[in-house]
Amino acid sequence: MLKIKALPVDTLRENVLVLSRDCVALRPERLSGSRKVEVRANGRSLFATIVIADDAALVGATEAGLTMPLFRRLGAAEGVEVDIAPARPPASLDAVRDKIHGATLDGAALDAVVGDIVTHAYSDMEIAAFLIACASFMTPDETLALTRSMIASGSRLTWQRPLVVDKHCIGGIPGNRTSLIVAPIVAAHGLLIPKTSSRAITSPAGTADTMEVLARVDLSEDEMRAVVGRCGACIVWGGRVDLSPADDVLISVERPLGVDTPEQMVASILSKKVAAGSTHLVIDLPVGPSAKVRDADQALHLRKLFEFVGRRLGLVMEIAITDGEQPIGRGIGPVLEARDVRAVLENRPDAPFDLRDKAIALAGRVLEFDPELPGGRGVDRARELLESGAAAQKMDAIIEAQGPSPCAPVLGRLTYEVTARADGWIEGVDCARIGRVARLAGAPTDVGAGVDLIKRKGDSVRAGEPLYRIHGVDPADFGFARDAANEDPGFRVIRT
Amino acid sequence: MLKIKALPVDTLRENVLVLSRDCVALRPERLSGSRKVEVRANGRSLFATIVIADDAALVGATEAGLTMPLFRRLGAAEGVEVDIAPARPPASLDAVRDKIHGATLDGAALDAVVGDIVTHAYSDMEIAAFLIACASFMTPDETLALTRSMIASGSRLTWQRPLVVDKHCIGGIPGNRTSLIVAPIVAAHGLLIPKTSSRAITSPAGTADTMEVLARVDLSEDEMRAVVGRCGACIVWGGRVDLSPADDVLISVERPLGVDTPEQMVASILSKKVAAGSTHLVIDLPVGPSAKVRDADQALHLRKLFEFVGRRLGLVMEIAITDGEQPIGRGIGPVLEARDVRAVLENRPDAPFDLRDKAIALAGRVLEFDPELPGGRGVDRARELLESGAAAQKMDAIIEAQGPSPCAPVLGRLTYEVTARADGWIEGVDCARIGRVARLAGAPTDVGAGVDLIKRKGDSVRAGEPLYRIHGVDPADFGFARDAANEDPGFRVIRT
Repeated sequence: MLKIKALPVDTLRENVLVLSRDCVALRPERLSGSRKVEVRANGRSLFATIVIADDAALVGATEAGLTMPLFRRLGAAEGVEVDIAPARPPASLDAVRDKIHGATLDGAALDAVVGDIVTHAYSDMEIAAFLIACASFMTPDETLALTRSMIASGSRLTWQRPLVVDKHCIGGIPGNRTSLIVAPIVAAHGLLIPKTSSRAITSPAGTADTMEVLARVDLSEDEMRAVVGRCGACIVWGGRVDLSPADDVLISVERPLGVDTPEQMVASILSKKVAAGSTHLVIDLPVGPSAKVRDADQALHLRKLFEFVGRRLGLVMEIAITDGEQPIGRGIGPVLEARDVRAVLENRPDAPFDLRDKAIALAGRVLEFDPELPGGRGVDRARELLESGAAAQKMDAIIEAQGPSPCAPVLGRLTYEVTARADGWIEGVDCARIGRVARLAGAPTDVGAGVDLIKRKGDSVRAGEPLYRIHGVDPADFGFARDAANEDPGFRVIRT
Repeated sequence: MLKIKALPVDTLRENVLVLSRDCVALRPERLSGSRKVEVRANGRSLFATIVIADDAALVGATEAGLTMPLFRRLGAAEGVEVDIAPARPPASLDAVRDKIHGATLDGAALDAVVGDIVTHAYSDMEIAAFLIACASFMTPDETLALTRSMIASGSRLTWQRPLVVDKHCIGGIPGNRTSLIVAPIVAAHGLLIPKTSSRAITSPAGTADTMEVLARVDLSEDEMRAVVGRCGACIVWGGRVDLSPADDVLISVERPLGVDTPEQMVASILSKKVAAGSTHLVIDLPVGPSAKVRDADQALHLRKLFEFVGRRLGLVMEIAITDGEQPIGRGIGPVLEARDVRAVLENRPDAPFDLRDKAIALAGRVLEFDPELPGGRGVDRARELLESGAAAQKMDAIIEAQGPSPCAPVLGRLTYEVTARADGWIEGVDCARIGRVARLAGAPTDVGAGVDLIKRKGDSVRAGEPLYRIHGVDPADFGFARDAANEDPGFRVIRT
């Protein structure tokens, strides 16, 4: 038995255990093939990856050095005895190997895989192996079974209402913060929209990151229920509510790999929405040359898969195919996006028209779920609720109910304008590239960092005219963003 | 710019960089999506994964904490300035994504992938993604192109001789240390056999681990050439000679995943052999229910793929399909295997007959490559060289030329006999299970640890009679092995 020593090292998602090379419980070199051990204390058992310390001051022979995520998850105090043993390979890896060799997995096999993923029994490599094996082919029935396993992996909210609506975008379009406009419109109409959203993993902002500029978002389930009870809506971060936790693990591997198959997208989104208690859902599916979905054929395939799985899970769904040819709105990054959202809600004349139009269209489709509303009235009703100020009022109520934002909503003071190199017109804007520049600039960690777009697709420009402005807080990050923008600004300009 | 601080932490294969949360060069939280940075110093550039320190005593805001493998590979001293920047995703990942989506990759794409893997630009997840995408399908031409890329990734030995022979087993059978008998037989006949071999990754011993009980194996290229010049043979660890280094990275991910497709096996083995300068090669391909190749169909497919790729690389090859129904020899683990090898070379009456017969058969096939030898004389000639003591004499010469072993060849003193639970006869021995028990017992790190088989397939046993003996050095490891053996001993006994 070793004694727990907490190491002030943050290994982020991964459970890492530091053992002395002279450890009395097991010799860590032995594990160099798989490096995985089981850590038991406090009635809990977790899997961890080993690294070896060669300095007794860091970790001694009778100590187990627990890095922060592992220490937190194990929940035992320093000095407590802990049992370390070589991990047995999870039995469900056999199913992953079968999948690699072309098998179709049934619900029981997928339940076992998802169960082991949630308890961190899989290494990142093993998760990647599962994802890539699934990426090569997956039947609609497998996608459905995977979605069910993911729902069962965590908590499930219920709302005791026949109509619980939501709106979700498949992602990939910078800006595009329509949820923060759709939710208050829909709630102002009287439908229940308890929105849980995610933080960015590889993008410059998630809905939760932008909402956090306006209000507190890390609400517990009880707090969330109180807000929804008062306002008919909330816009919170889903991280404290434990909905489809398998999804959090899977996307944390998927995103850095840049692999986003239709099957994984459907399982990820629908597992979260069903677990959150949604009954009616509008999905925003942007199509464009630098979007996740590149053309109409892909969009059709994805729409059908959403419908197949969604219907079997009892969801009523509308898939909105939207224009994904460029970012939506002007700002990219939490503070900039929140500014655009405010401008739209306040009906300001300088509000980005594309964000406004798209939010109205999507809100209109959500409102059509209301059986009381005459068919085809959704968009008009959405526009009325926005123009009358009812949506803005509702948003203020939601913000007040969730509590004050922990962030100072200040725009990054370091600025740099990326300019056109020649006269011409803008043929296209690369969503991935603009997203990367905003991310490098510091978004979403620095809420005030990001990109503010000045020109759009179809605009004409003169040499030297600004295309967009980079905002930064940290000089080093700002430098990385500027260098990336200078190398490839992400605007295709046709010379005239 | 940060200053290098060496951290006495061994992260094994992985380059890990520890930065303070308050780091002045870049904020490490920012990278949580991919966690990859480029580390530049000393004219070198390496990729590394970040973890975050929350203790200035460990790593300060102006320091870069380099864990051991990274510190060694970068080759710069403590206090030297180092430049850290977010890593750009390697461009070759586009090819990996194409492969995931079903594309066939050409030589240029595979060269780029392999090149980035060798420079550690890929994370383990990304390597797994490439491997699994390839596992789903790979054409023979892709396998050939991958093998060529892997050969080009490292050094290549040349021997100025028309006939440079080798013998290689695809692995998976515990014991089976025929190379240590075949090489001296073949060299005693006069053929050149400069053997480079590997250490175990997930198995209880590699050829290099067992040879190390008898002689030094970590020879430089010059030292290896001197030994081959004197003896016509060597049996060294390939790690210092930089042959197909991409293979070392790929198998370090493949093995823990337990994925070993025909295509990866062929690329791995043939890239090493061609890089080592072999012209004529015998491949030992064991077939059995717990071997890597399960049946005759799989064996045929693998044989054809070896032939397709090997011929295009100019190799003359013989594929020997052998009995892989149980371990070969009695000992499993370096000291125990070395004992068996000695017994065979010294023609001792208690030498394991299966190891002896197999080594003679394989050596015979290698000797048939000699144009001077009348066809069909190979096996007889091999037996002569073994029985006359010529092979033993040659082995002594090789051992002397390579230098003394750094290990004490002492058998582990902790022993435990695994016994039959009932009277019956032994229907089968599970190679994977026996290998796991030997590995848990401490092999190959503890050279004296492992498993000594007492019964074989087809033998009859009485309840309480020993099936095998576990040897251990470290009490904790010994306990893990004993528990695993008690849970499932790996012997199928049919009750009589």
